[in-house]
Amino acid sequence: MIRITLIGSGNVAQHLIKAFSKSEAVEIVQVFSRKKETLSSLIDYDKIVNDFEDLKEADLYIIAVSDNGIAEVSQNLPFNNQLVVHTSGTASLNTLDNKNRRGVFYPLQTFSKNKDIDFSVIPICLEAENTFDFRILDTVAKSISNAVFPINSEQRKALHVAAVFVNNFTNHLYQIGQEICDANQVSFEILKPLIQETAEKIKTLDPIDAQTGPAKRNDSSTIEAHLEYLNNENQKNIYKILTQSIQHNGKKL
Amino acid sequence: MIRITLIGSGNVAQHLIKAFSKSEAVEIVQVFSRKKETLSSLIDYDKIVNDFEDLKEADLYIIAVSDNGIAEVSQNLPFNNQLVVHTSGTASLNTLDNKNRRGVFYPLQTFSKNKDIDFSVIPICLEAENTFDFRILDTVAKSISNAVFPINSEQRKALHVAAVFVNNFTNHLYQIGQEICDANQVSFEILKPLIQETAEKIKTLDPIDAQTGPAKRNDSSTIEAHLEYLNNENQKNIYKILTQSIQHNGKKL
Repeated sequence: MIRITLIGSGNVAQHLIKAFSKSEAVEIVQVFSRKKETLSSLIDYDKIVNDFEDLKEADLYIIAVSDNGIAEVSQNLPFNNQLVVHTSGTASLNTLDNKNRRGVFYPLQTFSKNKDIDFSVIPICLEAENTFDFRILDTVAKSISNAVFPINSEQRKALHVAAVFVNNFTNHLYQIGQEICDANQVSFEILKPLIQETAEKIKTLDPIDAQTGPAKRNDSSTIEAHLEYLNNENQKNIYKILTQSIQHNGKKL
Repeated sequence: MIRITLIGSGNVAQHLIKAFSKSEAVEIVQVFSRKKETLSSLIDYDKIVNDFEDLKEADLYIIAVSDNGIAEVSQNLPFNNQLVVHTSGTASLNTLDNKNRRGVFYPLQTFSKNKDIDFSVIPICLEAENTFDFRILDTVAKSISNAVFPINSEQRKALHVAAVFVNNFTNHLYQIGQEICDANQVSFEILKPLIQETAEKIKTLDPIDAQTGPAKRNDSSTIEAHLEYLNNENQKNIYKILTQSIQHNGKKL
């Protein structure tokens, strides 16, 4: 059994507590939370601490706090030469104080507070400073997920930028779709199956091969009609730039 | 039984043939296809015609051809006062020759040739010039789909623009995500569960409530780091504009 201590009480920490509680390969030693009550429904109250001095020995300490809290938390840990990782997609490994052995345990998913998640399909990106530590992280990650990848800090940076495009920006396009529907008394429900199918398609097709629509077809009369139709300057601008980007792709092929 | 004749042999026509063949409320009288062979695996060869003069009487004629072919096909039909509809998201009802009773039968989905589709969940948007014709379309649509909506030409235009945002543009963002991964030897597979979850989330949450990420958090240091990271001007431009659009939303609330 690998003995784990979690530091943090936010979304990621809570989902990890749930996942580790079900795993037979790991044991949660303690969880650090400023407010003990936040986690009281998830784990034995005895295991929750709010003073770093109360932390016991563990094989792995997982810091699951916001990016700008990582450095300070890692400095405050009252021990040396232990394996300490953070869970961030953006912070580099060096954000962690080097008095301990450092690593990254980054589950790449969008976590919502009130939505249960099947951790087994969530990719976990791992980084460590040596093979021994990597193996510990690998065992822990594989005990909760079937999609574990070695990813260095440079690659993780790329992955995080890419995730902004496919998650944050995509969701914003959904919102624009809803705004256009609302403005015309059309139910956004009508678009939902299309949204699901768009995501579904790339399970089997590369996005470039799944591309359809007026930009892809170079259907300039439809594009002009759409631009004329849109009277929100921001939406019009996004329409233009994404249309050009799709058309530019076509030319490069 | 409502007797239907389909005109066209592309993706939409083929998927409609498959769906209607399973329906007990309708009967396919004939299908018009320039090349009879294209449809020979989908329907009795005897029912395929390639001369408008060979069209028999039917309760409903569905023109499923590309947008710029609709007007000509509708003019070429050798009869009057029959119910004739097109399947386009962009063409108005008036594109059809007014020698017949006109309507629209628009299945809102992205159809791929080699992927079977569950038509029962595909929204079908209907428009007709009178209640009697609308009821025929409604019966036909409900015989293959559980999501049938009355949508007038103005609303259909809005819906099509919105669909470009949530389908075409979203798919292009997936492609950019893949490009960023490829450039850094990171498997795009890692992002696929995130893409699925992003689409899944809006089944229960409005997109504006599902929004996360650096733009939403006004996390300017991450935004700057991402912009510095991106060296493709086009990607950088899209990143900026979508980030601003998300931030602008926040201010309006």
